Amino acid sequence: MSATERGRPRVVVVGGGFAGLQAVRKLRGAAVDVTLVDRQNFHLFQPLVYQVATGALSAAEVAAPLRAVFKRQANARVVLAEVNGFDLDQRQVVLDHLPNGAREERLDYDTLVVAGGSRYSYFGHDDWMARAPELKSLSGALDIRNRILTAFEAAEVEPDDERRRSWLTFVVVGGGPTGVEMAGQIAELARASLRRDFRQVDTRSARVLLVETADRILTGFPPSLSHKAERALEKLGVTPLVGHTVVNVGSDSVAIRSGSDEVEDVGAHTVIWAAGVAASPLAATLASAIGSEVDRAGRLTVTADLTLPGRPEVFAIGDMVRIAQSDGTILALPGVAPVAMQEGRYVARVIRNRLSGRATKEFKYVDKGNLATIGRSKAVADIKGVRLAGFPAWVTWLVVHLFYLIGFQNRLLVVTRWAFSFVTHGRGARIINETK
Amino acid sequence: MSATERGRPRVVVVGGGFAGLQAVRKLRGAAVDVTLVDRQNFHLFQPLVYQVATGALSAAEVAAPLRAVFKRQANARVVLAEVNGFDLDQRQVVLDHLPNGAREERLDYDTLVVAGGSRYSYFGHDDWMARAPELKSLSGALDIRNRILTAFEAAEVEPDDERRRSWLTFVVVGGGPTGVEMAGQIAELARASLRRDFRQVDTRSARVLLVETADRILTGFPPSLSHKAERALEKLGVTPLVGHTVVNVGSDSVAIRSGSDEVEDVGAHTVIWAAGVAASPLAATLASAIGSEVDRAGRLTVTADLTLPGRPEVFAIGDMVRIAQSDGTILALPGVAPVAMQEGRYVARVIRNRLSGRATKEFKYVDKGNLATIGRSKAVADIKGVRLAGFPAWVTWLVVHLFYLIGFQNRLLVVTRWAFSFVTHGRGARIINETK
Repeated sequence: MSATERGRPRVVVVGGGFAGLQAVRKLRGAAVDVTLVDRQNFHLFQPLVYQVATGALSAAEVAAPLRAVFKRQANARVVLAEVNGFDLDQRQVVLDHLPNGAREERLDYDTLVVAGGSRYSYFGHDDWMARAPELKSLSGALDIRNRILTAFEAAEVEPDDERRRSWLTFVVVGGGPTGVEMAGQIAELARASLRRDFRQVDTRSARVLLVETADRILTGFPPSLSHKAERALEKLGVTPLVGHTVVNVGSDSVAIRSGSDEVEDVGAHTVIWAAGVAASPLAATLASAIGSEVDRAGRLTVTADLTLPGRPEVFAIGDMVRIAQSDGTILALPGVAPVAMQEGRYVARVIRNRLSGRATKEFKYVDKGNLATIGRSKAVADIKGVRLAGFPAWVTWLVVHLFYLIGFQNRLLVVTRWAFSFVTHGRGARIINETK
Repeated sequence: MSATERGRPRVVVVGGGFAGLQAVRKLRGAAVDVTLVDRQNFHLFQPLVYQVATGALSAAEVAAPLRAVFKRQANARVVLAEVNGFDLDQRQVVLDHLPNGAREERLDYDTLVVAGGSRYSYFGHDDWMARAPELKSLSGALDIRNRILTAFEAAEVEPDDERRRSWLTFVVVGGGPTGVEMAGQIAELARASLRRDFRQVDTRSARVLLVETADRILTGFPPSLSHKAERALEKLGVTPLVGHTVVNVGSDSVAIRSGSDEVEDVGAHTVIWAAGVAASPLAATLASAIGSEVDRAGRLTVTADLTLPGRPEVFAIGDMVRIAQSDGTILALPGVAPVAMQEGRYVARVIRNRLSGRATKEFKYVDKGNLATIGRSKAVADIKGVRLAGFPAWVTWLVVHLFYLIGFQNRLLVVTRWAFSFVTHGRGARIINETK
């Protein structure tokens, strides 16, 4: 796994998320050999993962196999492994947990692009994770799907009123787009999709609590849209608890602190985590390698061309970085797909320009707007100051998401399934998987 | 969970496979209250499970949620639980592992239908199961998918020639329809779908061994079709080892004994089990309750109307039974979906006739033929003596399977995916899932 036979510069990209994927794609045809390293064999279309968590889509519909994505890109190869560290002086990536059982391999690079992404943080309470799975990875979403469906099954056979109420109470932590979308979907599941599935229990009596510490949900949007979204959620049957904080997660209850500092224990078996952000640990690994530090969210600070200070051959992009701009300010862009994709494309452009000896201007993020869906035909959109809500926003959301779904086959399947769901309120992937 | 409020006879059906599902469906509108008990929340279209194991279909496409299937059948309800035993005198089913955590519940019945199905047997070597997962359940298929895809990933990074060869050797145990279909699919995966996915390794060099103890594969078919199938498999790149038996499964090798009693250790990391049949343990539970015994395959013997001797209110059907016919012979029907479905429908007819005081003739199986697919556009069919092979048999197979796929949405998605796969050789569900 060392030097390229053709003597071309070796580009190693760590992470097959939105940032890494775009970097590799935009190097297609360039005179470099690209190796993409990821611990998973698929690119995850993270904005739709919440739909897997409610059975609206199946796992394969939001996951594109990396090898299939790069099948026809001759200068790209994929290695399935974890990244354990970097030797910046030797210009090597240290791999671990290779699929053949090998534990340490070193991968030489001439240019390194690290795009490790981020995860949700449990505010220092990692022990809550087992009881409140995160809604970001595919495995998290499948875990949540099993729990939600099992909760309704449990309510169906539960003779005790109070315990039945706990089974029918769902707490979503975090009022960002993912939490909002998730809460809306659970309410729709209970009100529409599952309504006629059960005989003993009325699924419409399910409670969905959306807990957000800030004084409004969707803080990335203007306040007027946040309030519209809150009202739309309430109509769907969600109770938005803004100004509230989860202070403990038990096995069958959640302690929620209100703005007036009162703590209430809410009986709930199903808690879904979509709050806090922590950058990939690779950010800290890189920071310590260059004697720098990460911020409170674990993010590394890169220069205005997205490289490490003093290491122009090492790029770091996506959710795990902040950008030190040339005017001295530090820019923390939101952790959304468009930012990651633009950074990935920028890096590919810099690499191409360097091959031909050209300079590249600093990275500039072009904000194309902000979208969040709330439920069936409801959404909010803030596009260059134009604010939409309701059906027009939802159609915009639909078109944008389908456009960006990687792989034509997935797109067609997703449309087929969505068309059915829209007409029938059905959710075809409503299976509780045996997990081993 | 006891008597029905309306005073209608209570029918409890154990098992939501082909037999149980048909029994419940055909009781639609009858003056009974039906409870279907299954430990899983979905009906599995078992004849297509092997396609999940190679990523051609995703899990939700071969699994129909039971509650969705019976949404509009007002006299049917579903309970998710394991069945631990029966109290035939008290007319109760003993449930365990309910979704709310309850450990013992009793379900009263007036009529009981037990359709527990079967599983593969490991010839008394249950310790092989961890190394050679079975291709019958959904979880088995997902496990196999992870292993097959990981094996190619491992080969890609494996520097040692011999070990790489082990990673690229796949052993399928059992030359019945499932084993044949699986071996054909792995060969196609290696020859076509994955061919351009890898850069270091030539996936076409993969070896697929199909091990069958009998002197030909597909023993349920006439010898001429077995031999045609063997030749078709060879063309695909499968090596059929008829007259061979697996005598040990190691962590990276399989010991195979040939007809001449020589034992060869074949280096192989991926072993897939599709051999032997063992009836559900519920067969033995019922047998001991009536002082009877099971046969070597664990099957219970029922009377010609599919009830237990001396217990006309208890039916047992599907893969877990043999039938004592009125002429004294014992009939062991093949463990295929058409048999199970006909038995399920027969039981519903008997129950309906009893409600109106009518007698029902003995159960008679109508053999509509036998089908097995081998690969892309190849199959064998034996339909009332008409023997087909190649493309005509494959089209027959396709039509029959789509016709019987439960649920219209699934059918459309499966057709969409198949159409794509046929044109592109692609396999969209080719993801290695994190399992927890």
